[in-house]
Amino acid sequence: MSFNTFGHAFRFSTWGESHGPALGAVVDGCPPGLKLSEADIQPFLDARRPGQSKYTTQRQEPDQVKILSGVFEGKTTGTPISLMIENVDQRSKDYGEVAKAYRPGHADYAYDQKYGFRDYRGGGRSSARETAARVAAGAVARLVIPEVTIRAWVAEIGGDAVDPAHFDVAEIGNNPFFCPDAQAAKRWEALVDGARKDGSSLGAIIACEATGVPAGWGAPVYAKLDSEIAAAMMTINATKGIEIGDGFAAARLRGEQNADAMRPGENGPEFLANHSGGTAGGISTGQPVFCRVAFKPTSSILTPVETVTREGTATEIITKGRHDPCVGIRGVPVVEAMMALVLADQKLLHRAQCG
Amino acid sequence: MSFNTFGHAFRFSTWGESHGPALGAVVDGCPPGLKLSEADIQPFLDARRPGQSKYTTQRQEPDQVKILSGVFEGKTTGTPISLMIENVDQRSKDYGEVAKAYRPGHADYAYDQKYGFRDYRGGGRSSARETAARVAAGAVARLVIPEVTIRAWVAEIGGDAVDPAHFDVAEIGNNPFFCPDAQAAKRWEALVDGARKDGSSLGAIIACEATGVPAGWGAPVYAKLDSEIAAAMMTINATKGIEIGDGFAAARLRGEQNADAMRPGENGPEFLANHSGGTAGGISTGQPVFCRVAFKPTSSILTPVETVTREGTATEIITKGRHDPCVGIRGVPVVEAMMALVLADQKLLHRAQCG
Amino acid sequence: MSFNTFGHAFRFSTWGESHGPALGAVVDGCPPGLKLSEADIQPFLDARRPGQSKYTTQRQEPDQVKILSGVFEGKTTGTPISLMIENVDQRSKDYGEVAKAYRPGHADYAYDQKYGFRDYRGGGRSSARETAARVAAGAVARLVIPEVTIRAWVAEIGGDAVDPAHFDVAEIGNNPFFCPDAQAAKRWEALVDGARKDGSSLGAIIACEATGVPAGWGAPVYAKLDSEIAAAMMTINATKGIEIGDGFAAARLRGEQNADAMRPGENGPEFLANHSGGTAGGISTGQPVFCRVAFKPTSSILTPVETVTREGTATEIITKGRHDPCVGIRGVPVVEAMMALVLADQKLLHRAQCG
Amino acid sequence: MSFNTFGHAFRFSTWGESHGPALGAVVDGCPPGLKLSEADIQPFLDARRPGQSKYTTQRQEPDQVKILSGVFEGKTTGTPISLMIENVDQRSKDYGEVAKAYRPGHADYAYDQKYGFRDYRGGGRSSARETAARVAAGAVARLVIPEVTIRAWVAEIGGDAVDPAHFDVAEIGNNPFFCPDAQAAKRWEALVDGARKDGSSLGAIIACEATGVPAGWGAPVYAKLDSEIAAAMMTINATKGIEIGDGFAAARLRGEQNADAMRPGENGPEFLANHSGGTAGGISTGQPVFCRVAFKPTSSILTPVETVTREGTATEIITKGRHDPCVGIRGVPVVEAMMALVLADQKLLHRAQCG
Repeated sequence: MSFNTFGHAFRFSTWGESHGPALGAVVDGCPPGLKLSEADIQPFLDARRPGQSKYTTQRQEPDQVKILSGVFEGKTTGTPISLMIENVDQRSKDYGEVAKAYRPGHADYAYDQKYGFRDYRGGGRSSARETAARVAAGAVARLVIPEVTIRAWVAEIGGDAVDPAHFDVAEIGNNPFFCPDAQAAKRWEALVDGARKDGSSLGAIIACEATGVPAGWGAPVYAKLDSEIAAAMMTINATKGIEIGDGFAAARLRGEQNADAMRPGENGPEFLANHSGGTAGGISTGQPVFCRVAFKPTSSILTPVETVTREGTATEIITKGRHDPCVGIRGVPVVEAMMALVLADQKLLHRAQCG
Repeated sequence: MSFNTFGHAFRFSTWGESHGPALGAVVDGCPPGLKLSEADIQPFLDARRPGQSKYTTQRQEPDQVKILSGVFEGKTTGTPISLMIENVDQRSKDYGEVAKAYRPGHADYAYDQKYGFRDYRGGGRSSARETAARVAAGAVARLVIPEVTIRAWVAEIGGDAVDPAHFDVAEIGNNPFFCPDAQAAKRWEALVDGARKDGSSLGAIIACEATGVPAGWGAPVYAKLDSEIAAAMMTINATKGIEIGDGFAAARLRGEQNADAMRPGENGPEFLANHSGGTAGGISTGQPVFCRVAFKPTSSILTPVETVTREGTATEIITKGRHDPCVGIRGVPVVEAMMALVLADQKLLHRAQCG
Repeated sequence: MSFNTFGHAFRFSTWGESHGPALGAVVDGCPPGLKLSEADIQPFLDARRPGQSKYTTQRQEPDQVKILSGVFEGKTTGTPISLMIENVDQRSKDYGEVAKAYRPGHADYAYDQKYGFRDYRGGGRSSARETAARVAAGAVARLVIPEVTIRAWVAEIGGDAVDPAHFDVAEIGNNPFFCPDAQAAKRWEALVDGARKDGSSLGAIIACEATGVPAGWGAPVYAKLDSEIAAAMMTINATKGIEIGDGFAAARLRGEQNADAMRPGENGPEFLANHSGGTAGGISTGQPVFCRVAFKPTSSILTPVETVTREGTATEIITKGRHDPCVGIRGVPVVEAMMALVLADQKLLHRAQCG
Repeated sequence: MSFNTFGHAFRFSTWGESHGPALGAVVDGCPPGLKLSEADIQPFLDARRPGQSKYTTQRQEPDQVKILSGVFEGKTTGTPISLMIENVDQRSKDYGEVAKAYRPGHADYAYDQKYGFRDYRGGGRSSARETAARVAAGAVARLVIPEVTIRAWVAEIGGDAVDPAHFDVAEIGNNPFFCPDAQAAKRWEALVDGARKDGSSLGAIIACEATGVPAGWGAPVYAKLDSEIAAAMMTINATKGIEIGDGFAAARLRGEQNADAMRPGENGPEFLANHSGGTAGGISTGQPVFCRVAFKPTSSILTPVETVTREGTATEIITKGRHDPCVGIRGVPVVEAMMALVLADQKLLHRAQCG
């Protein structure tokens, strides 16, 4: 029912538009006594920040977070944590064209049909700038689940995938693509730059893994961990698909291939595989929670596309401005944040019911 | 926070286990004055009912629904509609093995870790029998959205896909697989029967389309229509992936390929393609809403799999009983029901905010 | 948003009408592993059961509860607990008058205005029979909070109040009025019987005390324990007021009279008074939680009252049938149940956030 | 589950402490297209603003509201409306005593017990400054229900009540007490000033009436309009009781006195009385919605009270600072705001279900 809130026990609400004075998040339900300062949040915002390479939008936003409430003497108080990020680089360009005609692939037409009008400046609420607010909230969520390590990366751009044989965690931070395969990262430079120069854009697939999640988080039926993760990821701008574990590939396996066999281990049962992505019956198994998220190519492109005006006459539109040639790339910190937000919530929910 | 409830304005809660006396759903928030009797619900339960061909489980359940409340003189009153289905065919077999050891691929281990113990009879709450309750609730949801037509089908079994060139809606009801391609249905007979005879199982992909959804349902950010559909589908037993529109394939398109161009039409703007699956910015566009759902192969197989007992010793287990060789097949009415439940909810939510 | 559900972490939904086949409750979020059988619930239903003295309605309902799900081998499983009570004594009388004209004080007119029509048989969903379902759910809630003792009583009927000097807990179960003052109980016999013979009815005030609630349950602002209790009590049929601690009388005290002074005690701080009713800033203090609830006189009376028909013409109506001359009396087990349901929920919520 | 959010379809969340940099509210679910600027909100904040007479706290807060999101070209967009009010007059006094010992009547002890520590500066989150945020949100809610007129007043201070015979709406704005009785206002000057000089404080009762509410808002059982109003009012600082219509007095009426008789009127049925306070069966009847709210005396007094330190030793405490001698007075705009917030929510909820 709440359109701008996510979570149950650990919840957050975001507000703000692309071209308003600021945007922010209010985190509610956070446990008290956690050490928290702006310095715990800023690195995650910096990872998401635009303008850091030629492969992302050139909009320059410092994205400095301010904590306005909920922290006293460096610790969370258990009351709402209000986080605010000011918008700085709002270019005073003419939005006349966007105001008049619908950009295919964008929310323009749907917003007008729903609300009767729309804030056309930079997409208003549909802008991916909203994701800065959830990255900030996600940094707080991480403090709630110190036992969990979350790591996402770009697994594929424009159909060119990472080679599992070259997977190297340490590589993810070494290139502007969050790519764990140095060779793929090299290829993607040309790929993404080519798309940018063509006035086109590319899609991407992001993978995310959370290790350290104990068995028992989640719940059967309408609160399955799978469902919560799917809902979370599909709220991110430009996402069109989500899979847990083997996902769509599992639909092509036979039962005996897909079942993750078990054997006794030193610290309880061990699994011989993780086709399931760390969940069974909607509940975590203790294996790494793993998912993949599909991002469509950026809709804001310089290639002209047929469309109609608000008055219904035919026209063509190109979307000028400073856009990501592959919006999926900057999705990596956002996917991580959503995973943290889901898991923090699940930890508290599990504690509520099962003590 | 609610573990067994789905929806916001139009909500339903389900209850019941595989081997308890009954299962049911309570539908809340239903508009008053809709004509409703058991006859409006039963056909959907019949479509989902087991034991109708050799390709599904041989458990015989009449799945007769009773309306216990919320209807007066044949019309919904606006108060909760309680729907109950009695369990009839609970075979009094020995569950000793299942009680003692964890079935890989099942929820057994996760339940024990979460709750400390579990109802091992037929999987208890993790049984797909729960889906009967939501199919019943979904039949009520359909009455709320008479403007919408929902149709699902099996698009792929064990990696063998329907040929779009042979797609024929009329064919879906003509075979035991909900298959729109007569040739594929023929092939699947051998495929599924082979897996069954091998003591194995197959995964499947189900596609679902809702036509007649007006532009404007859904909401930006954490109430995206995409997110609601993804959450809904990922609550169904055995699902591991969901995509809207082109989904993962969109991640391999370029921006100009993926943008659904528009042109003036007789009744407002028309789209020249539907890569988006009927949503933009989380809001319906008026195009058909389209999604695909991945079902893993049934975990209950006769092939032995390595596992551990509750006490932690190594063993092997085979899952006897009457199981679907391809659980995805009977997922078709369930996917349709969840789509109806999401859309009925979205219609009411949109009406709440936008009048 | 949910019209028939109460609670957050520990939730229940009720369904059913006065003259349908049955009514029930679905309890969700209950911790696993609690011993539960019908015998744990039945005594509370028996306390609320009609027809036990001449001071309550003569409708004879055995109100036998059945547990349909959520319990395995005598213990809660953590999945939804479905409770059902069949309606037995539905007298096949003519509801013609009630169907045609609005009973002043009843929900008739409001239901027609909201829903366009109504189930007029015994009031349908507005019947106090719904409270049987919550008494059943409340019995489950009590298992979640074994540290808490809840006790309610009738403090006043028709303006005749219990004398605090005669208060005797043991007396509550000794008379048909849940009255802790033997002398008042004696007076009430004549008072209530007189009202019944006059074809009239009386209001009542119920007091409820929960001891053993530890300090720390509840939350500031919109989840204050006071607010949760007030909401809970005001959902009971015929309630028109609720006060916590001294309530309205506190508005007539001066600050130094109202402040509950503290001093060191053997087990932490002790309070020298309990004007606050066990809460401060919306959070429990460790003192007994205390509230009082006002019940209006039963609207179903034999005295004729001016009204209008559905068609809008003037008429008079008397409400025949088997009605409580003082509906507040049977409210005692219902008030206790709601207190238990709120506190069970608050315990789990506190555990979620604060561990 | 959400500790700092209120409402369902029309929701708001507040954040901020007494001595943080700012406080605010995020309003979600607001219909689009409503004209809104700071000027629509500021008058309500001004009415609540401290320091306007010697009968309220002398803290000087301009309470200037800023709209940070959700409005475009002067109209609500349907996306979250972020409202912020900066704290200005935070006196840099020594909170040493408050930090060390618990103030009886305050939330100090309960907070420490719940969270392990607390923000002692001005009460932190427990400060009545939070109500500025809801007054701002309430101003937005009023725009959603232009058909409704809401008016609250102080009906009683320290046991001295308004005389109904002298009730004059026009008088409410003419004195510093929101008092509709000029003679009572005169008496209260001495009464409140006397309490202030004594270092004591007084309680109050506020009445609130909403006219123009159509029949049909609210819902039976757990979403009764009465329950929603009670919950809303009991979230306000210092409230200890709430009654709808005749409330506790109804418990002393007989059935025929309490039933609001009906007769045909020009625009549908008319009621001959309003004992019910505008609700029946939890649903509005079309009569004025009426409630009364009890406020305890301010706990912050200069009279010393026995208490204990955090370490558990006995001490006495007096609460210096700039406090309201009767906190109920400034509750008037807050009660009005909560009524507006409930009714806006109910209007949207009714529209969702009943169209």
